[in-house]
Amino acid sequence: MKDLTEREIIRMITNQFAGERRVPLGFSDDVSAIPLSSKTWIIVKTDMLVGSTDVPPGMTIQEAARKAVVATISDFAAKGVKPQALMVSIGLPAPVKKKTVQDIARGLGQAAREYGCKIIGGDTNQADDLVIDIIGVGLAKPKELVRRDGARTGDVVAVTGSFGKSSAGLRILMSRQKTDFAKYPLLVRAARLPKARLTQGIILAKSHGASSSIDSSDGLAWSLHQIAQASMVGINLYTIPVAAEVESFAKEHRLSALELALYGGEEYELVVTIRPERFRNLKRLVPSLRRIGIVEKEPFGVSARIGRQQIVVEARGWQHFT
Amino acid sequence: MKDLTEREIIRMITNQFAGERRVPLGFSDDVSAIPLSSKTWIIVKTDMLVGSTDVPPGMTIQEAARKAVVATISDFAAKGVKPQALMVSIGLPAPVKKKTVQDIARGLGQAAREYGCKIIGGDTNQADDLVIDIIGVGLAKPKELVRRDGARTGDVVAVTGSFGKSSAGLRILMSRQKTDFAKYPLLVRAARLPKARLTQGIILAKSHGASSSIDSSDGLAWSLHQIAQASMVGINLYTIPVAAEVESFAKEHRLSALELALYGGEEYELVVTIRPERFRNLKRLVPSLRRIGIVEKEPFGVSARIGRQQIVVEARGWQHFT
Repeated sequence: MKDLTEREIIRMITNQFAGERRVPLGFSDDVSAIPLSSKTWIIVKTDMLVGSTDVPPGMTIQEAARKAVVATISDFAAKGVKPQALMVSIGLPAPVKKKTVQDIARGLGQAAREYGCKIIGGDTNQADDLVIDIIGVGLAKPKELVRRDGARTGDVVAVTGSFGKSSAGLRILMSRQKTDFAKYPLLVRAARLPKARLTQGIILAKSHGASSSIDSSDGLAWSLHQIAQASMVGINLYTIPVAAEVESFAKEHRLSALELALYGGEEYELVVTIRPERFRNLKRLVPSLRRIGIVEKEPFGVSARIGRQQIVVEARGWQHFT
Repeated sequence: MKDLTEREIIRMITNQFAGERRVPLGFSDDVSAIPLSSKTWIIVKTDMLVGSTDVPPGMTIQEAARKAVVATISDFAAKGVKPQALMVSIGLPAPVKKKTVQDIARGLGQAAREYGCKIIGGDTNQADDLVIDIIGVGLAKPKELVRRDGARTGDVVAVTGSFGKSSAGLRILMSRQKTDFAKYPLLVRAARLPKARLTQGIILAKSHGASSSIDSSDGLAWSLHQIAQASMVGINLYTIPVAAEVESFAKEHRLSALELALYGGEEYELVVTIRPERFRNLKRLVPSLRRIGIVEKEPFGVSARIGRQQIVVEARGWQHFT
């Protein structure tokens, strides 16, 4: 029997349930929804951080706990929904030291304060691996929630920041080269203290300007492909938003800056499509917004033409089990 | 630095957040609540099952997945709240076989159907250990929700079934003695296919007859102590509801049947207190209800007097990290 990738596993499990009854947001959006009425949905998201695969050397346990919260908040950000409460399920290898628990509690508390939400409960377990599962709960008006499948021909494709910082920073953490720590503090910071774009996501949703949205936690390329696929459109990029520090870092280490920016992941920017007539106004409200391409009827999928160069944007990104 | 027990960890983490803002149900009830209005609360519960500590040999992965759901449903049952939707976060050791994922999906689907709730989303991750975190979401009228802290002097203490079956069954699974499998099928079944008392819990809540309630997942003794402590009352038992098969099994293996029934855990009966004038009526609605004691003003804690014998009921039960 063949080994499965993460996305194949998700597909197998969701297929099991998708057929039974319809769910309002489908099984493949960033969050799940429970309709309370035609005007209100309960929004739920769970995101599990695992020590052996999600916490690089050089990241403290407090930072890991904070990052676990950021990952869940980021999915709410992409939908423009404020998370009101968080639940926390923790697995810890025995024996458990007091300091470990204090550090986890501090990291969780720090993130909860940053994004103005409340930790209301949880569960603790013994496990062979550090596991921090963060569950977010919020309320949304269905009309304001920005789905993945709303991109339309002619829409502007935009992002809330530049890319590649987390994956470059992760390489610095893994290599432990002191010179890089000193030279690229911003990259190290991006990997250790990532930020979710909650305020930006809520503004984009409330202004009804975004036609589709996703976060970039699995990489820019993957996010663009998800929007293209869900919306059944083509996306054509005319720039790849590589962060300046990533360019320098890549040059120094003979890496591809495009590879870092397109496929790195663990980054929590928003990738959105916007009605062209609304872009200028939204740019005023969310100054970090940056145009990177346009939605086209076809070809399906994602392509990029930078100057005269045609770049293949593959449907791959960061995933477990590979 | 000293190693921590599971309850110390929970206390440390909850203390970190308990001080910040008040939560409607407190941090130590079976579920957590988010007030939507004065008449409606969103109820959330997360319960994590871990392969190395929660899945005994002889339990299939499909049974483990089903049991993970039952554990979360049981907390809803104890509060008398119907869970509407479930989220599932899964951690799996690589490489992942198709059959593993199919079995997990089947177990989850089976439990969701048994308790009439819908799986609406989730997350999948690579981990060193099998992890299945089940999140339940439901709605409750605050007045109907049965808390842990409502027991009053004079109330009847009652349970929805007999005890010790799961812990005896667990011993059979672990020992792998074929004769016991053949002789005690009911005990093996209790360990492999536990049931949550959702219908009973909802009836008890809707009838406003139960003054406090908790499930017995950490053991009968622990549950009684939790009610006594939260309600600041004493509980005096006049019988320990040991299952008949557990008596036989204990006798044959020279074990203490009382020990199995009081401290076994992994059992999902409800432990409730009921206004004395309501007991007969409730017994008609929930025939499995069985009186086991009475709530007294003092002494605080839990004691038992079976015939002429005084039995110490310790505040211990099943927990990780010991």
